[in-house]
Amino acid sequence: MKKDDLCMQQALRQAEYAEREDEVPVGAIVVYKGRTIAKSYNQVEKLNDPTAHAEMIAITQAANYLGSKWLKGCSLYVTVEPCSMCAGALVLARIEQVAFGAADPKTGAFGSKTDINKLKLNHKVRIKQGILERDCAAILQNFFKKKRKRDKNKNYF
Amino acid sequence: MKKDDLCMQQALRQAEYAEREDEVPVGAIVVYKGRTIAKSYNQVEKLNDPTAHAEMIAITQAANYLGSKWLKGCSLYVTVEPCSMCAGALVLARIEQVAFGAADPKTGAFGSKTDINKLKLNHKVRIKQGILERDCAAILQNFFKKKRKRDKNKNYF
Repeated sequence: MKKDDLCMQQALRQAEYAEREDEVPVGAIVVYKGRTIAKSYNQVEKLNDPTAHAEMIAITQAANYLGSKWLKGCSLYVTVEPCSMCAGALVLARIEQVAFGAADPKTGAFGSKTDINKLKLNHKVRIKQGILERDCAAILQNFFKKKRKRDKNKNYF
Repeated sequence: MKKDDLCMQQALRQAEYAEREDEVPVGAIVVYKGRTIAKSYNQVEKLNDPTAHAEMIAITQAANYLGSKWLKGCSLYVTVEPCSMCAGALVLARIEQVAFGAADPKTGAFGSKTDINKLKLNHKVRIKQGILERDCAAILQNFFKKKRKRDKNKNYF
């Protein structure tokens, strides 16, 4: 199995933890010199915090690990394309690479809805996309399918 | 003094706390039903965390206070125009209004460098700008002026 796929599998495992806690299943990890230095999943509902996306938590963890506000030489693997908040944070962190699984046409900020790299800020992130795309999309689709079904049943009672 | 000016004065006081700690002096507060429910300042250097902008900390504080991931009916006052990360977070938080002092042509994401409201995400933030603009710009300009002078002197030794 390719290195990128192995890393995304770790991110997918994080997304599964989110799903078990009834959070939108998104997972992320940060890799530095071949080592995973941060792992996290979306915790918006649990923490009642709109900023608690998987990527944001992973950035803070990685910065703590490195003792640096800049994540030079780091790669973030995330199951879905980051939103504007997370893309903005990844640029501020000067991360080297972001690899994502599924694209997000509604809010994705690395090419789908908008492209933060085109703003010519003081850092440009290298992007890889489509890593284990099918698995990354499926976990989200199943989550929302189940949720819609549950919400529909709720209306009967 | 107008209500907006009084609120921005509170945000400016927060920016002064940042300055004393040698952080880029940006301050923010969140107001809900006439009450200040969050106050914060930029802490990127102290926390070694690129996500620790004043606005992000204020959003998390306000969400904690309200026990809700959404900041409906809230206004954020911030001394400088939010960047992409913070603007993205404010949209995710579905905040009602953002009032800022100085515009930021380099990274401002509510009209200067880019405009997140134009992306037609699932929430649009009402914007007021130019509140105590001169004071909000001055504290930043003085900070960077002093910093450049200090860095220049450093080179002599």
